[in-house]
Amino acid sequence: MPTLIEYEDANDEVRAVYDDIRATRKTDFINNFWKALAVHPPTLKRTWEIVKDVMTRPGALDPLTRELIYIAVSITNGCEYCMASHSAAARAKGMTDEMYAELVAIVGLANMTNRLVEGFGVPVDERFRR
Amino acid sequence: MPTLIEYEDANDEVRAVYDDIRATRKTDFINNFWKALAVHPPTLKRTWEIVKDVMTRPGALDPLTRELIYIAVSITNGCEYCMASHSAAARAKGMTDEMYAELVAIVGLANMTNRLVEGFGVPVDERFRR
Amino acid sequence: MPTLIEYEDANDEVRAVYDDIRATRKTDFINNFWKALAVHPPTLKRTWEIVKDVMTRPGALDPLTRELIYIAVSITNGCEYCMASHSAAARAKGMTDEMYAELVAIVGLANMTNRLVEGFGVPVDERFRR
Amino acid sequence: MPTLIEYEDANDEVRAVYDDIRATRKTDFINNFWKALAVHPPTLKRTWEIVKDVMTRPGALDPLTRELIYIAVSITNGCEYCMASHSAAARAKGMTDEMYAELVAIVGLANMTNRLVEGFGVPVDERFRR
Amino acid sequence: MPTLIEYEDANDEVRAVYDDIRATRKTDFINNFWKALAVHPPTLKRTWEIVKDVMTRPGALDPLTRELIYIAVSITNGCEYCMASHSAAARAKGMTDEMYAELVAIVGLANMTNRLVEGFGVPVDERFRR
Amino acid sequence: MPTLIEYEDANDEVRAVYDDIRATRKTDFINNFWKALAVHPPTLKRTWEIVKDVMTRPGALDPLTRELIYIAVSITNGCEYCMASHSAAARAKGMTDEMYAELVAIVGLANMTNRLVEGFGVPVDERFRR
Repeated sequence: MPTLIEYEDANDEVRAVYDDIRATRKTDFINNFWKALAVHPPTLKRTWEIVKDVMTRPGALDPLTRELIYIAVSITNGCEYCMASHSAAARAKGMTDEMYAELVAIVGLANMTNRLVEGFGVPVDERFRR
Repeated sequence: MPTLIEYEDANDEVRAVYDDIRATRKTDFINNFWKALAVHPPTLKRTWEIVKDVMTRPGALDPLTRELIYIAVSITNGCEYCMASHSAAARAKGMTDEMYAELVAIVGLANMTNRLVEGFGVPVDERFRR
Repeated sequence: MPTLIEYEDANDEVRAVYDDIRATRKTDFINNFWKALAVHPPTLKRTWEIVKDVMTRPGALDPLTRELIYIAVSITNGCEYCMASHSAAARAKGMTDEMYAELVAIVGLANMTNRLVEGFGVPVDERFRR
Repeated sequence: MPTLIEYEDANDEVRAVYDDIRATRKTDFINNFWKALAVHPPTLKRTWEIVKDVMTRPGALDPLTRELIYIAVSITNGCEYCMASHSAAARAKGMTDEMYAELVAIVGLANMTNRLVEGFGVPVDERFRR
Repeated sequence: MPTLIEYEDANDEVRAVYDDIRATRKTDFINNFWKALAVHPPTLKRTWEIVKDVMTRPGALDPLTRELIYIAVSITNGCEYCMASHSAAARAKGMTDEMYAELVAIVGLANMTNRLVEGFGVPVDERFRR
Repeated sequence: MPTLIEYEDANDEVRAVYDDIRATRKTDFINNFWKALAVHPPTLKRTWEIVKDVMTRPGALDPLTRELIYIAVSITNGCEYCMASHSAAARAKGMTDEMYAELVAIVGLANMTNRLVEGFGVPVDERFRR
């Protein structure tokens, strides 16, 4: 069981990150991922900064699509925690059970065809090269 | 270099699949993936059926989002062909360079945090369990 | 391009391994894998010993089945060299094009269902627990 | 804990698949994998169709060899459920403890040599190119 | 639950390996990894030989660095047992909490940049080719 | 072939990152990784920030050990570019051919034992739990 740093036990550096997580997400809830990273404040700080930037910076992909992509990677890697936490985030942004099932089906399919490509050694079509 | 079966050299079973690919995609172009699978017609047929079903069956996820998920998996697995072919498909459905760059950034990020979770052994929060 | 140590340029320790490879396989051909490992003789020696033991020690699995399993892993990991070298070995032991195509199909399928299991969080059935 | 759809609670589409699983496998037992997929009937139906086709269609590989290949992939990916369910299937088809141990040893070995190849950047031998 | 062979129940072949593990590590403790491999003595024997050789043979890398590399791979592959056992070994050789946290951060980072490279298809710089 | 942004063609945001890379590394050379990321300046900027922080912040692990860990992950994932670029960095920090060979051997070994653990389902020893 890893050490989980609660807000009350956190030093100023960690609290500053927790405060920003709370403000950004508009909730008091700090999930275990951050409490575990807090054992090493530099890792906590830069991970939060990059997560916040990649997932919330205004851009071309909407917030739900970003979560779906995140989950797709996490299923491929078999990361239970990441699936659980980002599925919760995705549901809060509108993901339905049907969307999740379709997502899982695509992830499964891509993992299959990736290996068919490897196994048959398929060369990239000229027109796909840019 | 794998064997690639051209339409002209295909038997009836393979041609039937090629015809359906052309009709479904509204193009005469058959990419190398299918030409390589055609060495084993049962694999060609069932792979096309599942790809067609997962990627084009009406559902809750729009066609572009499906392609983005597909690419996310393919980047994670390092499948160059799959990245190239599905990026072409995604661009045809509206993916911009900016969207692609954001997609890659999310894929990278998720691959990082998946390992932070493993390394720190983060337990799933009670509220993420359903 | 890695350094490849030819028989003529090898020291005694490396030659002893090359000689055993040749004797075991009943061929003068030494493939690049061993020539590359030869830059570090202890790695060459112990890798050959374990490969020889796992792949040729009399046991319950026949030599062709062992090669098929080896290839299945190599496709999953996308190792082109390993696919090429062990496909050659498998063909020498009787693998046909049809067998290879079926093998690739199973590898693809398993990679898909592995992720369906992850995505849906399927619990192990009581009767599968031993 | 995912939703698992029992036969009694299944709709007609799901029951038709369950009935075919039972008839094909000659057992009333439906394992959790299918009960979990049943939350999304199209995924259940097409997954069963491809599993049935790849694993039971008459071909060049015998049923036990197919299971061994399946398990090899599942071990590589660390999918506990798939190892458990396909080991049960393999045992029913004749896999002994010795065969299983040899399988695991080959899977381990291939995962090692795959990385030795990557790390030393071994080029494919001319004679392995087809 | 796998079968775990205790010293008392081991045959001579297994005991010889256990004795060498104890002598090499200067402790009576045999961890579960070896007890599980002992169901197949040839796998136990050759695995111990290669682990002993790779991890303890005098060489250019010190024992702690070897453990850190081992853990890096195990985190990437999500192998909980390997993380736990080699973290214990690393701590015994001097790994501090801070070192472990830095290790995990690097593993996460490399997993991210590996995918940025794939996604953007970065060509190897001429000067990096040897 | 991806777009690579040269210093001369870079906008101010990109140039600022390039300048910091040059200053930090004390060389004018900008490798392709950064030139490729420069198509999306936010990704370039935050990737450089995290790479710089993780790899150069004073800490418990020395610079060479950090590179070795990085390479271990990159070999496991089969990322040729990352192996090439970080091997160059490691050599500049003192990595010898012997050290590299030992590193590859450990990476191979860990990838093997990770799967032996999965295949045999080895339970974590009580004393390894913290």
